[in-house]
Amino acid sequence: MRKISILGSTGSVGRSTLAVVDAFPDELSVAGLAAGGNVELLAEQIERYRPELVSVRTPDDAQRLRSMISTKVGIVCGADGACDVAALASADAVIAAIVGAAGIPPVHAALRAGKRVGIANKEVLVAAGDVMTRTAHEHGGEILPVDSEHNAVHQALRCGTHPEVERIILTASGGPFLRRELSTFDDITIEAALAHPTWKMGNKISIDSATMMNKGLEVIEAHHLFEQPAGKIDILIHPQSIVHSMVEFVDGSIIAQLSTTDMKFPVQYALLYPQRVPAPFGRLDLAKIRTLDFLPVDTERFPAVGLAYEACRMGGSMPAVLNAANEIAVERFLSGELPFVAIVDIVRRVLDRHAGNVAAIGTVDDALHWDRWARNEARGIDVAVRR
Amino acid sequence: MRKISILGSTGSVGRSTLAVVDAFPDELSVAGLAAGGNVELLAEQIERYRPELVSVRTPDDAQRLRSMISTKVGIVCGADGACDVAALASADAVIAAIVGAAGIPPVHAALRAGKRVGIANKEVLVAAGDVMTRTAHEHGGEILPVDSEHNAVHQALRCGTHPEVERIILTASGGPFLRRELSTFDDITIEAALAHPTWKMGNKISIDSATMMNKGLEVIEAHHLFEQPAGKIDILIHPQSIVHSMVEFVDGSIIAQLSTTDMKFPVQYALLYPQRVPAPFGRLDLAKIRTLDFLPVDTERFPAVGLAYEACRMGGSMPAVLNAANEIAVERFLSGELPFVAIVDIVRRVLDRHAGNVAAIGTVDDALHWDRWARNEARGIDVAVRR
Repeated sequence: MRKISILGSTGSVGRSTLAVVDAFPDELSVAGLAAGGNVELLAEQIERYRPELVSVRTPDDAQRLRSMISTKVGIVCGADGACDVAALASADAVIAAIVGAAGIPPVHAALRAGKRVGIANKEVLVAAGDVMTRTAHEHGGEILPVDSEHNAVHQALRCGTHPEVERIILTASGGPFLRRELSTFDDITIEAALAHPTWKMGNKISIDSATMMNKGLEVIEAHHLFEQPAGKIDILIHPQSIVHSMVEFVDGSIIAQLSTTDMKFPVQYALLYPQRVPAPFGRLDLAKIRTLDFLPVDTERFPAVGLAYEACRMGGSMPAVLNAANEIAVERFLSGELPFVAIVDIVRRVLDRHAGNVAAIGTVDDALHWDRWARNEARGIDVAVRR
Repeated sequence: MRKISILGSTGSVGRSTLAVVDAFPDELSVAGLAAGGNVELLAEQIERYRPELVSVRTPDDAQRLRSMISTKVGIVCGADGACDVAALASADAVIAAIVGAAGIPPVHAALRAGKRVGIANKEVLVAAGDVMTRTAHEHGGEILPVDSEHNAVHQALRCGTHPEVERIILTASGGPFLRRELSTFDDITIEAALAHPTWKMGNKISIDSATMMNKGLEVIEAHHLFEQPAGKIDILIHPQSIVHSMVEFVDGSIIAQLSTTDMKFPVQYALLYPQRVPAPFGRLDLAKIRTLDFLPVDTERFPAVGLAYEACRMGGSMPAVLNAANEIAVERFLSGELPFVAIVDIVRRVLDRHAGNVAAIGTVDDALHWDRWARNEARGIDVAVRR
């Protein structure tokens, strides 16, 4: 029996993780849960999964939660609370599915406690990848990717050794605007940007898919996870999201991983690795899918991709700044404050301001420092809503 | 430096193997060559690769060869000669690329001598799979598949363990008649049947691709190579021949291997495994390929597939009979004696005649006995050429 904690249990990946727990009652149980604002759902999860410790955002939420449940459970709150859940002694593995840089301290805490951490929360690796991989190495922690793309790469890499890797090929759906007329990008609505064609995901990541910043962040994530330079990480548009990613080896063989678009597959893999256990989830039938398409990335359409490669090459604090600026820009877009095309403009402008001051990220605090700096900058940039 | 012998050095796979030797002058050299009728090409190969021993079909061929070369080399002939080349003490690995059941004795000799054998000659495993795998096991020999499909499966299997395999998915181009009107099958010419859409191969295998008997034989081959029952081996039509095959694991992950349609890739893999070495051969660019299609097998169009599954399930001598009857039927079609559709008719009739007498294949002689029996039967069946 493997006990797990989930950071972000009420979100999309968190709920998929609990569905995996449901599917493997003999293999998996829940030790801790950390949630954001959805206290109602957390209360249901507590009654059902009987965790030892849960964490919420604020003391008020904690009090509200207490009044909603009959089960005995420890309740903590705030950033420290999430770290307590992440480092819980009884947990063997942690699924990190908090959105954004808020996931950095608890993931660090889990790795310091020597846990296996399944990371869906890509911003953690983007903003503080060096710190995370070093911490895992020093404290016996283990990072397993839950992003479907990196999970696919992790699987494909089993077919060879590290020096035998020619390149990693991350697939990208291309999001909702793959074929939209460029001249109409100024008119993109929030609703249109949230309508992802293949994956059902949270709002932040859906917008990142629409700009393809998501894929840019994944390039940086792959750089840390698989110790490959940006130049050996390519992106290929694959609208059906069936081939989750690929690895080309030096001998010319490409190994690809395929499954349906269901996050339960990579979650299960990360929790049970190296074992593969029969899954009760919907299987892929290629004879029904019939066609898989691939096309190159149009970097004019998706300028976020170029920015992310640039940040990855520059390294240090640049990716943390990219990530934070992007989080704020997306937030501002979702609040109706910005047009869609301004998201990348803002990120570019914050990166430009940082270009002369790139610093090493030696600690979580370094990452959080530059994260805060970039957020402030991104908030302060004035962009008129064009019509 | 790994020394290799090639059985069938003047054929398509044999020439690809020598191209791999050319590409890796520091890793590979030639110990022995066995050829069929093309003495002229063998003479050129001897001058260039300086093998220690070569084998030809007949004493006459041996004499003719001697007169054509200036290089010192041992020359042997006949089935025993091919076995001598296969078991040559100085060779570390053997590529078995003789067409048909003629490959059985030399492959057996190589495995008895403890060699690594890269098998492109699928009939060997179809007709005598049990004997070959047992011989490899007992004498420290090793079988590595050179067929692009089984080579792909071999690679994909590295992503999990044997009990974790849900099914093997062999891809098939569907050959030249995938979309031809069924009502026109009676009019298929030899030329049309030889025109394979994606692979350049020898005549026998090209016809087998047109009937899809090739894929049926590969099901039986996969059964022996990967120790899986017929029920766990599926076929999926994939006209582009880019995904060379796939493995579905019990957790729902499908791992696929892709490359250009060039036999040098699987030959190199089989010779250098487990090492992957940078290959100078043409790389796959999916952004240029753009589309990969998949469709189910139409068993009415390709009845050979059903016969092969049946033979695989019945086991024993049945696959040897299937293979031998097919070899003769293809030979008769290529000589203009039979219409295309009669190939499978003949095979079915020989299988029917054998159904009451299925015997175990304990030795190479058992396999050769039923091979001869089925050939005679297949030769004797009278089929009028319809017009």
